[in-house]
Amino acid sequence: MRVEPIYHVDGDLVPASEATVSVDDRGFRYGDAAFETMRVYGGTVFEWDAHLERLERTCESLSLDHGLGAADLRDRIDETLTANDLEDAYVRLSITRGVQPGKLTPQPDVDPTVVIYAKPLPRGGVDGEPVWDGPATVRTVETRRIPSESIPAAAKTHNYLNGILARAELRDTDGQPSADEALMFDTEGAVAEGATSNLWFVRDGDLYTPTTDGPVLPGITRAIVFELAADADIAVHEGRYDLEGRYDLEAVLEADEAFLTNRTWELRPIETLDGHEIGGGPVTDRLSRAYDERVERACYRG
Amino acid sequence: MRVEPIYHVDGDLVPASEATVSVDDRGFRYGDAAFETMRVYGGTVFEWDAHLERLERTCESLSLDHGLGAADLRDRIDETLTANDLEDAYVRLSITRGVQPGKLTPQPDVDPTVVIYAKPLPRGGVDGEPVWDGPATVRTVETRRIPSESIPAAAKTHNYLNGILARAELRDTDGQPSADEALMFDTEGAVAEGATSNLWFVRDGDLYTPTTDGPVLPGITRAIVFELAADADIAVHEGRYDLEGRYDLEAVLEADEAFLTNRTWELRPIETLDGHEIGGGPVTDRLSRAYDERVERACYRG
Repeated sequence: MRVEPIYHVDGDLVPASEATVSVDDRGFRYGDAAFETMRVYGGTVFEWDAHLERLERTCESLSLDHGLGAADLRDRIDETLTANDLEDAYVRLSITRGVQPGKLTPQPDVDPTVVIYAKPLPRGGVDGEPVWDGPATVRTVETRRIPSESIPAAAKTHNYLNGILARAELRDTDGQPSADEALMFDTEGAVAEGATSNLWFVRDGDLYTPTTDGPVLPGITRAIVFELAADADIAVHEGRYDLEGRYDLEAVLEADEAFLTNRTWELRPIETLDGHEIGGGPVTDRLSRAYDERVERACYRG
Repeated sequence: MRVEPIYHVDGDLVPASEATVSVDDRGFRYGDAAFETMRVYGGTVFEWDAHLERLERTCESLSLDHGLGAADLRDRIDETLTANDLEDAYVRLSITRGVQPGKLTPQPDVDPTVVIYAKPLPRGGVDGEPVWDGPATVRTVETRRIPSESIPAAAKTHNYLNGILARAELRDTDGQPSADEALMFDTEGAVAEGATSNLWFVRDGDLYTPTTDGPVLPGITRAIVFELAADADIAVHEGRYDLEGRYDLEAVLEADEAFLTNRTWELRPIETLDGHEIGGGPVTDRLSRAYDERVERACYRG
């Protein structure tokens, strides 16, 4: 028997089929909402503090003063996990600006809508299985990342069309995606990030990743990789890798190793970029193992 | 007695309190939806064909093949108007990509969600009343319009945070907006448009408006103003009015007249821009009258 998932919507646990929001909710009308996606390992939300902090930064940049405390949000997540009997899970938490009188201009008084969704994901850590089928095939696309002067890149919001347009470019003639991830440039031609992932590459033992000075999400997995690299004495370079500069896309194409990071994938090697084989390697493997060990320490040996 | 409005949601007429979408709908998750706002005068949707055409262009740019016919959409609008007993109304029609399996990457098979909302708006035409309280106060803002290479400016979508951030900049210390509209520049510094309106200004009898070569919505009211100006032998110049070029913001500030257009406001004079008085004038008045006459002919003398 397939059990219907339980969602947490606006304070209540409800079956998926009843998990709805008003069509007047600004989250629906305008994508006027902040969100975080998390992984839960052994019942523990991994890096909860980092997610909470980024959520607050997103809400600040949207002038969305939701008034909810950290403990309240965490309780709702825990209730959702319990209701769905989940120990190892993917969790998405959204906070919208709710229904407001008037039209586009946001009002300072917010009655937020909070939606939490959880689904099973395999165990992580040293005994875990990656959630992806294999190394990623990646293709560059024409759709450019939105500049931060238009929408701050550090904000995780329900305005996700930019990434959707990038992914739609991957469609084959049969309508199916021809690659796992779309690699996007910024409007000035520098490599930015994948539609839902940060990019990394390795040259001569050093690690490189596009700087968050450009329109690049400061991923929480990305921040952890910086720490793991420091622990392992691997030099990390943040920079702009553009089509005309010293490092351009060729720098990625000719890398010794390359991988993507996000909350769900953790570290995922890039098998091919625009058909050129790159693959993982010793640095990627070392950092992946260190990541698994960190998950193990943080969540399974509590 | 206040009667509860009736919405048209996914094929059914439902009271506002029951007008909901699934939290899994891509319209909610990602703002993955197209929309149009229309005015209905005397029971007739003004410029329906133009709205339909733009809606289709939006859906094409989102690769959203909703499969709904024009007559079907029009029937739903008419049912909504009848259910709410409306002759003169504002109507918003949204089509989302619906619920899909998988995550961000859009699937070609779409089961769209269609939402229609209508509310009373005063009669238009020569005997009509403007819906705005008075000429607009306008302020320039820092948030830049999203470049078309990131999201096509011609697409009207539920990703509306860019305009919301612009409007949020207008907040006074008490949290209330200090102006009616936020005037936005593009990322290169050229004047683009208001958060929900197109900009026009008059110098020496000629009419000027930012070109849709930049990130400017091809407004349907905007297109009508072009036609009305041609009928009235008023020269119209489309261009880039940037901070360094021949025409910059000074050209707007020192204009003889200036006004905004959108579907709801029709033509609305600009009283002040960043505190500088501009106001309407003979050209604005002439075009407003011609617009009213066009509404009258199209909708009230059918």
